[in-house]
Amino acid sequence: MNYTSTFIPTLREVPADAVIASHRLMFRAGMIRKLANGLFAYLPLGLRSFRKVEQIAREEMDAIGALEIKPPVVQPGEIWKESGRWDAMGEAMLRARNRLENDFVITPTAEEAFTALVRDELSSYRQLPLVLYQINTKYRDEIRPRYGVMRGREFVMKDAYSYNCDEKSLDDSYQAMGRAYRRVFKRCGLTVIPVKADSGAMGGSGSEEFMVESEIGDNTLILCKKCGYAANVEKAGCSPDYTPGSPENTPPIEKIETPNVKTIDELCAFMKNSNAASEINTPVGSKQFIKTLIYRAVNVEMDLSSAPGCKNLERKKAAEGIKNGIEMYPEVFFAAAIRGDLDVNEAKLAALIKAAEINLAEDSDVIRLTGAPVGFAGPVGLSTLPVIADNTVTAMNDAVTGALAKDLHYNHVAYGRDFTGWISGDIRMVKAGDCCSNCGGELYEKKGNELGHIFKLGYKYTRSMNVSFLDENGKSVTPAMGSYGIGIDRTLASVIEEHYDDAGIIWPATVTPYHVIIVPIKYDGAVKAASDRLAADLEKAGIEVLLDDRNERPGVKFNDADLTGIPWRVVIGDKGLSLQPPMVEIKRRSEKENHMTELDKAAEELTLKIQEELAELNS
Amino acid sequence: MNYTSTFIPTLREVPADAVIASHRLMFRAGMIRKLANGLFAYLPLGLRSFRKVEQIAREEMDAIGALEIKPPVVQPGEIWKESGRWDAMGEAMLRARNRLENDFVITPTAEEAFTALVRDELSSYRQLPLVLYQINTKYRDEIRPRYGVMRGREFVMKDAYSYNCDEKSLDDSYQAMGRAYRRVFKRCGLTVIPVKADSGAMGGSGSEEFMVESEIGDNTLILCKKCGYAANVEKAGCSPDYTPGSPENTPPIEKIETPNVKTIDELCAFMKNSNAASEINTPVGSKQFIKTLIYRAVNVEMDLSSAPGCKNLERKKAAEGIKNGIEMYPEVFFAAAIRGDLDVNEAKLAALIKAAEINLAEDSDVIRLTGAPVGFAGPVGLSTLPVIADNTVTAMNDAVTGALAKDLHYNHVAYGRDFTGWISGDIRMVKAGDCCSNCGGELYEKKGNELGHIFKLGYKYTRSMNVSFLDENGKSVTPAMGSYGIGIDRTLASVIEEHYDDAGIIWPATVTPYHVIIVPIKYDGAVKAASDRLAADLEKAGIEVLLDDRNERPGVKFNDADLTGIPWRVVIGDKGLSLQPPMVEIKRRSEKENHMTELDKAAEELTLKIQEELAELNS
Repeated sequence: MNYTSTFIPTLREVPADAVIASHRLMFRAGMIRKLANGLFAYLPLGLRSFRKVEQIAREEMDAIGALEIKPPVVQPGEIWKESGRWDAMGEAMLRARNRLENDFVITPTAEEAFTALVRDELSSYRQLPLVLYQINTKYRDEIRPRYGVMRGREFVMKDAYSYNCDEKSLDDSYQAMGRAYRRVFKRCGLTVIPVKADSGAMGGSGSEEFMVESEIGDNTLILCKKCGYAANVEKAGCSPDYTPGSPENTPPIEKIETPNVKTIDELCAFMKNSNAASEINTPVGSKQFIKTLIYRAVNVEMDLSSAPGCKNLERKKAAEGIKNGIEMYPEVFFAAAIRGDLDVNEAKLAALIKAAEINLAEDSDVIRLTGAPVGFAGPVGLSTLPVIADNTVTAMNDAVTGALAKDLHYNHVAYGRDFTGWISGDIRMVKAGDCCSNCGGELYEKKGNELGHIFKLGYKYTRSMNVSFLDENGKSVTPAMGSYGIGIDRTLASVIEEHYDDAGIIWPATVTPYHVIIVPIKYDGAVKAASDRLAADLEKAGIEVLLDDRNERPGVKFNDADLTGIPWRVVIGDKGLSLQPPMVEIKRRSEKENHMTELDKAAEELTLKIQEELAELNS
Repeated sequence: MNYTSTFIPTLREVPADAVIASHRLMFRAGMIRKLANGLFAYLPLGLRSFRKVEQIAREEMDAIGALEIKPPVVQPGEIWKESGRWDAMGEAMLRARNRLENDFVITPTAEEAFTALVRDELSSYRQLPLVLYQINTKYRDEIRPRYGVMRGREFVMKDAYSYNCDEKSLDDSYQAMGRAYRRVFKRCGLTVIPVKADSGAMGGSGSEEFMVESEIGDNTLILCKKCGYAANVEKAGCSPDYTPGSPENTPPIEKIETPNVKTIDELCAFMKNSNAASEINTPVGSKQFIKTLIYRAVNVEMDLSSAPGCKNLERKKAAEGIKNGIEMYPEVFFAAAIRGDLDVNEAKLAALIKAAEINLAEDSDVIRLTGAPVGFAGPVGLSTLPVIADNTVTAMNDAVTGALAKDLHYNHVAYGRDFTGWISGDIRMVKAGDCCSNCGGELYEKKGNELGHIFKLGYKYTRSMNVSFLDENGKSVTPAMGSYGIGIDRTLASVIEEHYDDAGIIWPATVTPYHVIIVPIKYDGAVKAASDRLAADLEKAGIEVLLDDRNERPGVKFNDADLTGIPWRVVIGDKGLSLQPPMVEIKRRSEKENHMTELDKAAEELTLKIQEELAELNS
């Protein structure tokens, strides 16, 4: 392709809103343009790379037997009402209503559409497993779209859905998909961190996210320096940093006056300086306090009939289709007790009590439920609501905590002696410095962006949408389901984030828009003839060539070659051609040095090098 | 691909709503399924053919130097307000508003998006012509979607837009696109009728539609038996079937009483039987009457300052951006006079007076403007509104027409003597039996479906959206623009409409999902080995193979092979394989006879035949 026959509007200046490398470089290299906030157009150069990422995803899906289909982008609202997500998806889902008052959804994900299609076709176990996918437009109404195509509103997702006869088969599909995803990212030249993830609003259990490290990442990853353990902070665990004690030597619980003390820090300071402190065995620190937080939980599935303060709560059957009519408590308040130096991980807490959503309670609710001003909640004698005790709290045998009254705390509190949680479990937020639950190594944090996500949905959609098949014995069975997605735009942008320098992009051979850029010093006479011939020879060998036939200074052409990141550059000038044999200059974008090669051997040399790199990435 | 590894849910029964062959067969062959009214999912088999049609369109666009880009499907409402089409597009355009109260459009066409992109990048005449295209999802909210993907709500369109430095260059792009479109349809094995078209709501002039004949077509085509002239009835002309007369021998105009006569037929009957008839020179027929219809026109651009009854009308400047602020009359009434045996072509009439929209006036307006009950309008003495005279009327020199009063008509009316139209022109609806304006041959009608449409938009969008470039002299100039679209889904469905029989589809080699279907009588032992080897040999030669490895009766497999329409079928059984040399049966889907071929030569024979057909279609 000749440069003047295509459309690559490179820019010197950087758009003001482009703060990350991929956004900046995709703009400057003429790969994308913005049509509106979060809505981008791929220009010819960008589209070439984009299609290559799509194709890599397609090939890896086909390789594991997944079948491509093309459902509509605009979907009927009815199927979202059936699954219960019409309400659950909130305002991030763009809806439209037509003149006939039909509700439509601009699809953000397609569990419903695939399940509706499969439902009508599935009859026998012989059809399973069935793994279907699409590579198609999605829309999510990000409130603050930014970072270019890394977090746009419209994007293309490769989303796959597996329908399996049982959980064993689901696990097979899930594992195959995990391997395919690793290959997709490897082929794109990306270093991904597969992490255990909280499965969030998608429901179900068993999931893995494929993350790339990114300073603007919207996920926090917890990683082990020693064993390679990696998890999303929402789900990360750590090894216990406490030993279960016994309260044998703990003095009896006592109330202490703590005027005007509300926060843990204030309490530490107060106790250090007060008489009370002398009665505590160990030095006073936040680790010795029990922090108690009051949460409001929505749509709680856990059975609370025996829980404190919950006797009069009524369970309601969920709306038709939602969670298959399971009974839930629409609103419940809980107390979460945790060691004073730690934070509660709300995702873990919600999972533990099977709540759709949890939030810190309003002050007025805290006051009503604890009978005290905010800051004096504590688990001792708390009978108005269930106490969820973090595992750290169950090991505390001489603690300080709020006494459910203004300016009063309890001292010498021992778990099991002075109070017991209604239930206990791991609800702590793991952070850098904690110890790996796997090997005891030190954990550290990274910010990450999610490129892919695989998870076992189980029966969430197949039950709510009434999918069934006949098993070998003619019995009607509900299939298990998995859902698997890769963001194509985000993957492409991440390739640039990992492969660039000050001058521009440095494409891996698999996703570069062209393999070779030929830069004639002046596109004329013998130089033109040599350039045209080399381009033709390379193209004959299957190599994709951009020939910079512009009437521009060599410096401008070199800058654009670096900016657009094409991995191999060939410079052809009168000087080299006048040598015997005629020579051209070859430079690899990722290297500083160039070298001269015989014109007649350049095509062969380049083809070999490119095929080598392709083979290595695709291996 | 093995049949059991893909997903081709063929059906015996026909869906109740499938009335046309393509809809019926795409369903039965497991190519598509319906998700909701007008919203379809392509299943694996359908998607293969769909992608081939896309790829043919892509190759032909690339061949004429058009450049593929990918703008978003969800577009900002702002650009539609800028062009003026936010209002003009009506309810067929699906809109959505997000939580931030931003307006969005699910794009039905993309003049605005492409023009907005080009506007920001265009600076010099050196960048022109610039021809960009996309192959992407579109949505139009058909009130009554039907006929499967032939008239769905969501569909994929290949839409291209050219930006040209002047009208000569626009014509070059337009002609190149016309040639490319002919090639696209030829390669798909389609017989299209290119017709001159009214350019409708798109504005501009110079357009051609690519039609396929279809009994459910929503267009009427006027065709000449002799010279091949073809036009959309909305724009079709015909040769004059009248000779301009002179009123020399016409008796003076006179009023005649016509009690209770309102229609032309009643008038004919009345005049034949009345005394008045004796005073008419020629036999009375509807050809001797002047029919006068009152129309209400909206947003009329024509200058009416000298037109009867229009002196007090005020022109209003169109809203900012709409038609570049041109002054228009929001509402004007016109009288259209035409020979009594003819109908008015409203598209032609609207084009003649430059109206955005015209409709027959309400009865109350007719009574108010003509001063007579409905049925007595006539051009003689009509001073309250402008009279548009069809060319046929200008040749009438002894006619009968309404006299603007109840139960009164004029006799012996001569054009030019007794009245003159404010303007005259061709506003007649051409119909079968009229004579070709090109060669005088007899015209006939066909119903057609539009698959593609090319038109010169001129400056409509580039002006309203303020696009400009600097010409060779450094002067700022507005580029001319063309718009070119092909419906991919509709093209695919039309291929089936042209290529099927009672048993199923008969694919042309270019768009078939597979080239060869191998049907082992029983997929086992030697038959399995031979089938697998033949499939491998064919695939090595680039031939796409479906191997029916199902454990089904041969009859079921044969029926599905016919239904899915794969052009070549190879049947492999023990009987043939036991011969020396081993033989297989080859049958072409389009032919009745089959023949036996040596197993070892089957791959070569099939490859040759398929390459021949591909070469012929692609030539």
